[in-house]
Amino acid sequence: MYIGVDYYPEQWPRTQWDKDIQLMKTLGINVVRMAEFGWSLMETEEGCYDFSLFDDVMDRFDRAGMAVVLGTPTATPPPWMVEAYPEIQPVDKNGRTVSIGARRHYTVNSRTYQGKTRQIVEAMGRHFRHHPALIGWQVDNEYGHEASDRSYGEEDARAFRQWLERKYGTLENVNKRWGTVFWSQVYTSWEQIPVPLPVYQEHNPSLLLDFDRFCADAYDIYNQLQVDALRTWIPDSQFITHNFVYSGLALDQKKMAENLDFISFDNYPVWGGLAEPIPPAATARQLDLCRGTKQETGYWVMEELSGAQGWSQIGYLPRPGHLKLWTYQAISRGAEAIVYFRWRAARFGTEQFCHGILDHDGVPRRKFDETKEVIQSLETVGDRWITAEVTADIGFYHDPENEWAWKIQPQSDQFDYAQEALRFYEPAFAWNVPVDMIREDADISRYRLIIVPLYFLTKPGFQEKLEYYVRSGGTVVFTYRTGVKDADNIVTEKTLPGSLAALVGAEIHEYESIRENNYAVIEGVKGAVAGEKAEAHVWCDYLVPDTAETLAVYRDGWVDERAAITKNSVGEGKVYYIGCGVNTDFLYTLYRDMFEDAGVSIMETPKNVEMVRREGKSENFISIMNHDTEKAGEITLPPGTWTEPATGEYFQERMVLPALGSMLLVQHCEN
Amino acid sequence: MYIGVDYYPEQWPRTQWDKDIQLMKTLGINVVRMAEFGWSLMETEEGCYDFSLFDDVMDRFDRAGMAVVLGTPTATPPPWMVEAYPEIQPVDKNGRTVSIGARRHYTVNSRTYQGKTRQIVEAMGRHFRHHPALIGWQVDNEYGHEASDRSYGEEDARAFRQWLERKYGTLENVNKRWGTVFWSQVYTSWEQIPVPLPVYQEHNPSLLLDFDRFCADAYDIYNQLQVDALRTWIPDSQFITHNFVYSGLALDQKKMAENLDFISFDNYPVWGGLAEPIPPAATARQLDLCRGTKQETGYWVMEELSGAQGWSQIGYLPRPGHLKLWTYQAISRGAEAIVYFRWRAARFGTEQFCHGILDHDGVPRRKFDETKEVIQSLETVGDRWITAEVTADIGFYHDPENEWAWKIQPQSDQFDYAQEALRFYEPAFAWNVPVDMIREDADISRYRLIIVPLYFLTKPGFQEKLEYYVRSGGTVVFTYRTGVKDADNIVTEKTLPGSLAALVGAEIHEYESIRENNYAVIEGVKGAVAGEKAEAHVWCDYLVPDTAETLAVYRDGWVDERAAITKNSVGEGKVYYIGCGVNTDFLYTLYRDMFEDAGVSIMETPKNVEMVRREGKSENFISIMNHDTEKAGEITLPPGTWTEPATGEYFQERMVLPALGSMLLVQHCEN
Amino acid sequence: MYIGVDYYPEQWPRTQWDKDIQLMKTLGINVVRMAEFGWSLMETEEGCYDFSLFDDVMDRFDRAGMAVVLGTPTATPPPWMVEAYPEIQPVDKNGRTVSIGARRHYTVNSRTYQGKTRQIVEAMGRHFRHHPALIGWQVDNEYGHEASDRSYGEEDARAFRQWLERKYGTLENVNKRWGTVFWSQVYTSWEQIPVPLPVYQEHNPSLLLDFDRFCADAYDIYNQLQVDALRTWIPDSQFITHNFVYSGLALDQKKMAENLDFISFDNYPVWGGLAEPIPPAATARQLDLCRGTKQETGYWVMEELSGAQGWSQIGYLPRPGHLKLWTYQAISRGAEAIVYFRWRAARFGTEQFCHGILDHDGVPRRKFDETKEVIQSLETVGDRWITAEVTADIGFYHDPENEWAWKIQPQSDQFDYAQEALRFYEPAFAWNVPVDMIREDADISRYRLIIVPLYFLTKPGFQEKLEYYVRSGGTVVFTYRTGVKDADNIVTEKTLPGSLAALVGAEIHEYESIRENNYAVIEGVKGAVAGEKAEAHVWCDYLVPDTAETLAVYRDGWVDERAAITKNSVGEGKVYYIGCGVNTDFLYTLYRDMFEDAGVSIMETPKNVEMVRREGKSENFISIMNHDTEKAGEITLPPGTWTEPATGEYFQERMVLPALGSMLLVQHCEN
Repeated sequence: MYIGVDYYPEQWPRTQWDKDIQLMKTLGINVVRMAEFGWSLMETEEGCYDFSLFDDVMDRFDRAGMAVVLGTPTATPPPWMVEAYPEIQPVDKNGRTVSIGARRHYTVNSRTYQGKTRQIVEAMGRHFRHHPALIGWQVDNEYGHEASDRSYGEEDARAFRQWLERKYGTLENVNKRWGTVFWSQVYTSWEQIPVPLPVYQEHNPSLLLDFDRFCADAYDIYNQLQVDALRTWIPDSQFITHNFVYSGLALDQKKMAENLDFISFDNYPVWGGLAEPIPPAATARQLDLCRGTKQETGYWVMEELSGAQGWSQIGYLPRPGHLKLWTYQAISRGAEAIVYFRWRAARFGTEQFCHGILDHDGVPRRKFDETKEVIQSLETVGDRWITAEVTADIGFYHDPENEWAWKIQPQSDQFDYAQEALRFYEPAFAWNVPVDMIREDADISRYRLIIVPLYFLTKPGFQEKLEYYVRSGGTVVFTYRTGVKDADNIVTEKTLPGSLAALVGAEIHEYESIRENNYAVIEGVKGAVAGEKAEAHVWCDYLVPDTAETLAVYRDGWVDERAAITKNSVGEGKVYYIGCGVNTDFLYTLYRDMFEDAGVSIMETPKNVEMVRREGKSENFISIMNHDTEKAGEITLPPGTWTEPATGEYFQERMVLPALGSMLLVQHCEN
Repeated sequence: MYIGVDYYPEQWPRTQWDKDIQLMKTLGINVVRMAEFGWSLMETEEGCYDFSLFDDVMDRFDRAGMAVVLGTPTATPPPWMVEAYPEIQPVDKNGRTVSIGARRHYTVNSRTYQGKTRQIVEAMGRHFRHHPALIGWQVDNEYGHEASDRSYGEEDARAFRQWLERKYGTLENVNKRWGTVFWSQVYTSWEQIPVPLPVYQEHNPSLLLDFDRFCADAYDIYNQLQVDALRTWIPDSQFITHNFVYSGLALDQKKMAENLDFISFDNYPVWGGLAEPIPPAATARQLDLCRGTKQETGYWVMEELSGAQGWSQIGYLPRPGHLKLWTYQAISRGAEAIVYFRWRAARFGTEQFCHGILDHDGVPRRKFDETKEVIQSLETVGDRWITAEVTADIGFYHDPENEWAWKIQPQSDQFDYAQEALRFYEPAFAWNVPVDMIREDADISRYRLIIVPLYFLTKPGFQEKLEYYVRSGGTVVFTYRTGVKDADNIVTEKTLPGSLAALVGAEIHEYESIRENNYAVIEGVKGAVAGEKAEAHVWCDYLVPDTAETLAVYRDGWVDERAAITKNSVGEGKVYYIGCGVNTDFLYTLYRDMFEDAGVSIMETPKNVEMVRREGKSENFISIMNHDTEKAGEITLPPGTWTEPATGEYFQERMVLPALGSMLLVQHCEN
Repeated sequence: MYIGVDYYPEQWPRTQWDKDIQLMKTLGINVVRMAEFGWSLMETEEGCYDFSLFDDVMDRFDRAGMAVVLGTPTATPPPWMVEAYPEIQPVDKNGRTVSIGARRHYTVNSRTYQGKTRQIVEAMGRHFRHHPALIGWQVDNEYGHEASDRSYGEEDARAFRQWLERKYGTLENVNKRWGTVFWSQVYTSWEQIPVPLPVYQEHNPSLLLDFDRFCADAYDIYNQLQVDALRTWIPDSQFITHNFVYSGLALDQKKMAENLDFISFDNYPVWGGLAEPIPPAATARQLDLCRGTKQETGYWVMEELSGAQGWSQIGYLPRPGHLKLWTYQAISRGAEAIVYFRWRAARFGTEQFCHGILDHDGVPRRKFDETKEVIQSLETVGDRWITAEVTADIGFYHDPENEWAWKIQPQSDQFDYAQEALRFYEPAFAWNVPVDMIREDADISRYRLIIVPLYFLTKPGFQEKLEYYVRSGGTVVFTYRTGVKDADNIVTEKTLPGSLAALVGAEIHEYESIRENNYAVIEGVKGAVAGEKAEAHVWCDYLVPDTAETLAVYRDGWVDERAAITKNSVGEGKVYYIGCGVNTDFLYTLYRDMFEDAGVSIMETPKNVEMVRREGKSENFISIMNHDTEKAGEITLPPGTWTEPATGEYFQERMVLPALGSMLLVQHCEN
């Protein structure tokens, strides 16, 4: 398998290059990514190309037997371009032009920038395509990151109106589907339609959702432009990927992935503003999202954190063990290559404090040793591990349009999409049950249970699919605020949960936004949760069961006894409705019961210990990662004898994993 | 009496209209307000009018025997207008043009917009004036709300300078009265005078106060323009009103009310950002402000909350009982008509989550039933109740110019005008003593006691009036920071409380801003408060009594023993000075004593239970409202036998009102 | 000595002037500062000068035997100028033009404004130079204060690029030294280089530091322009000064001081937003900074707070005693003249609530009496006191470039430069050990110990100087993050502490940013601190000692036992390295030990009691200030008999100073 580093030869003297390559070889590195911020060097003035620096360094990597992934440099248009074509600059949500001086200072809607992009990408493709070290390409870098997903300038407004015209054909359609009779917004020319710049109150939520869709489409078109420009020149053997981030941007990674050979991910469990890493389940969820973005392939981690990170603020210093742990976690959940960010910390520029495997002084120390240990541990087994299957019994619905719709109308100050999605993901993670991240177009028949959380904005056709699935014996779990909106971000006129009411077997006659410092109390009244109490935050749907049975009720003042969680039997299947933001402990109990009921097997581990199974053709893999920084974990292994390939040591039944320990175990299997 | 709903026929298919009307009849509704956001529909392109939609729906209401109030649609200029005349858009305090996309996106100072307003308003007046269902008009909607009261663009600057020229005549006058020698601001041409856009420090407070006055006058002129345009066409029998909000805007509702037949109010005890309703006294204060705005008439509640409200954030869900309670509270304090906002929640647009009597699904449920109960309870008695008198023994001074002056210079980070006004209002509310909100022009001889809180900016002539009033036996209560400023927002050169010192009988030689987490301790030393201790927040005046006696002193370090509260006898009357932001419990005691002294009778009720008396020609009314969401209240009734008209039940001496219960009782009286 | 007031005759009627002068005489005032905001009055329209107002008032002061300091009025360009030359207005960091309406609404980079400045300053110099009352000049007022230090408009960009061209000569140099290959920022024309307006991420830290240097230089040039303009006309006998503030501005006071005869300071231990004064050590540090700014002279406090201060928010009311205490503290630490701000509170303008010796009513009361007492107490002794020496055994390194570099990259959310500098200054203050604020150009041989805190950005030549100093027997104290950057704000490629590692005798192999609510625990293992535990905040360097010995270690999880504080012996001297933000109590112990070791004598006083020694030719002075507002302090006096000049009272060995008391004691000495 490929294990590499992100390398910036342009930031070091040429005399350093061979030393770096030599040290990388010592480490066991076999691939480097480079050039993604190199436009200034490659096109020194308009139309003058000079690829000699990268030629030279690539030749050296080639001689060292290492592979190269080249980035197209479009995330950072050079100063001469901004001077000559200031119209390429984006405009922020306050109407302010974003200055040159950092990165992503362009709008994908600029026709000028599209042209300049095509030229540099083609020039690179043409020049480098035959280089023997070159195995593939990364286009641009972290599309849309750092608020660059939405731009509000005149070029953007023009493109938005064209997009609307393509989508709706006529203004009558726009007016009707957005409900512009509200607040006298009936548009009589396309030019009247604004991009959502500041108003005294709030914009029409249907306009806002379409603006997000437009922004995502604009990036999709721009990505395709890059891919097409490359493919004009490069051989099929070279892959094209992009290193995505997953943080609620107006971006549809899955759609964009159709144009890519596989997707990549930049994995930073901790960053500049953070005093500690995000929860293990949050990282796991992002990795599962990666695996689900282009299900037919694996993905690369194109930037895997290897040291403390930050710009003017530095975050938590990863502890001894974290590097291996996060590497193993990524591979466990589908990564087939790991590229560490970065080889060595830069001495200048905004990212001076993005620490790498080496610090500024270039002296190999702890992080170097840890990286070496990881690479060695994967030497014999890595290639087999990454080809083993991650087999999930559970589908977990994730849809960017719902994320955008919730961002437009969070409804409670306690609502945060990623956090609430995590609320309903985390119990599956805790029981070590693999989940696939799916959309409405997935083949859901393969799953025993589907969790469809926060299904606020309904998607055409998905309801019918779920109904068939449940009738055929599947289990579906819905959460609060299901079925509220149609695809135009308009509220249903049916009683909630709208057209899903029959499936749920209950109606919602009242509901309430639960705000900061407030909560409701619920109590289980049936099944595994009976007698268990919990706080409910963020939102409460007060359910009136019809065919459904009540699993939990509210225990608060005026809503006392109203149903909070229900379970309905439909055909051969089951439908759960979790009506409020229930605390995690309660959900552990509920989920375990649901899993048992649906025939989903769990693997019990101590708190903070993650265990992931991958099944190969003739052997099974279990990776175990103890995210706890202080406590060792006593692990119960699945039946049989397990071998640790790195040491050849055998394990059976029980073992103890130290704090921040991680381990890969293999078992030969019959099939 | 009129009880109605806010209705938006344009948001529903025509097929729904008759069903809605039918259901409204079931409920007992007799009036609807409509059309206030309908400009796009009524003037589809510049100069092309089409009133057919509202003609149709008004005909249907007419046939159903229901009355209609029409709104002029100027709160939402249509997209075609913003496209053709972008100069109508307002500019926010940061100098940023406010985009189309929501509402109130115009500045009243735009001459273009004034012309466009006159045209649409005249066109509506001309078209609808003879419609048999039409009883009156609401001009625009919530003037100045949501920061639209102040606009900082070039049109505004031009108008501001003209306003200054009219007010001051010469630049010499401006320079002198603003003190522009400070910081070298001597203006030598009108064009040099800025609107208060961002500076590094802070603007001249005299300019700021004049800017607020100018903004208020600009809205007054704009309101008059609308009224004049309507009156050109409509008969005298049709009223003209406007639905005000009272939240410290640069607006003088009382002045504007002179051009209106009566004023209206939009009553939202809870809104988007709120986890619970504002305190009952805060709602009461706003309702008293409404009654005081145009004292010779009653007022309408043109929007009375009927469900959970909010845009992208939803607030507290009103509990069973709240709808009746808030309706009764409004009528108790002078409302003569209630229009519920809104008939049914909109499925689209920014206000999707402004819930109405019906939710999006249109199914009558709890809120429908509660509304029905309220309307039925008022069926026989409502008309008599609203004509009974609210007789107040107390005048409570409220003046927008003081509110603006305090907003310009809060002096302590703990100062909030509405909250501090409430501090001195709340004890009267708690003792169920009715108060009239008055200005300096009021006939104060009718009151036994006048509370003049936060009288920071003095008003010409008011002092002499108060002196005469006190000498004749009246009681006046002042609070901290009295008499500091003249009408130009200039500090007096007399020792504080300035020219009021003789009346107060004490001087202030030191004072202090009390900031967050700090407080002083005071202790009563005389009369009812003797021995009682309290915290004092926000501000401390350290008083040096001359003729006054000391009721309370500070008990803190270096100011130990200095006077905090004084009482002076002048002629036949009394003057109190409350020198600090005393905690409420202490004020209860003090107020009860002051009331007794001044011959003001109180009605004792449990905490959170409000009782209001209105006196009719031949019967008296007592409304009792228990704002407590959990505790029932045991009520001591005034002497005699009281009947609940809704049930015919009799009550004497004592009764118990459940949590959130409200009740109207009637007693036949001799006169 | 000069003791005076800031006086604004233009704010009062002429009839008041003689009364004011009379009252000032009563008080003992002998100097007034005036005219610094008087441009509007002195140049009523472009080119029309009228100095009659100040002529008149200066004549009166002359007759009264009082001296005058005139301010040049450039902090407030008049309205006519902004109207005629809008290009003089500054642009804030968001790209927004700063409006007229307050002060400092100009950019020093405006060529127009430079011309206008020269004209008014020359006109004033020419006109007033021979006035008998005139003793000196203050140019402008509080350069750069209130965010006016950095301006981001086109004039500024033009000047920035010229500055860069002067500094670097070629773009090649800029590109190399800023590392513009990072993020593709290679500039190919000067016009491409931006001023740091908003970007999505963060600007290049080398550009940011150069921008700060440029801003500081621009003010330096502007200051020189004023001084040159004045010196064209005024006699050498008249001094030129400027009233600086010290709050991390992009300003180099020391460099600017070279053009001034002495510097002045505006001393506000409490201001608008503050609920209590800043800590005594913070005021002391600022006063020491003043003394260090131009070491060969004393300095004036040109504005010494005399009452509660603020614009729209008023701060803490100084208590009885504070006025004397802060006056004594300033003189103790080098002030040779005190000018109180201000004579009387203004009745109008933004600074209405900047209270003076007199309040708005002009009635002398407590503050007047306290001022009188201070002045009287200094009558005989003041002149001798201010000429006595402040002799410091300790040098404390302070460098604005480091402050800017830290502001650009604070690295931890807990880092605040002034607060962290205070952390390492405060123990010296607590032990009453005088320190000199020094730069790298200081003659350090005279000190027994040098504290070089937060030495993040290294300065050329300083290391060699320190090495020589240590080898010769000196002691140097470094703190965390020493030696990280070169002068271009580039990270060293040596192992930290970079080229200082040999001196420190230890290396830093790992380090960590400690964020809010987090901390590490350290424990002393050797010497005076052995066994003492403390929390460490903000930052942790984990030290690996080479020749150094370990004084304290971390006692936390994975870094347990790593060195936190080290001490190295080099030649005859010692080098300490404090690797983390240790709590003050621990530092008290450590510092006392270091002082003892280095032969620095301390004076022990109770907490919050400050004692400062100044040595005259034939007498010594001890000033004692009890900053505690509640507790009296029992003081141990230095040996011998001490006299209080104001009372003639004798003190020996021990005395008690009441809360907020301050006292000056004198002792005749032999030499």
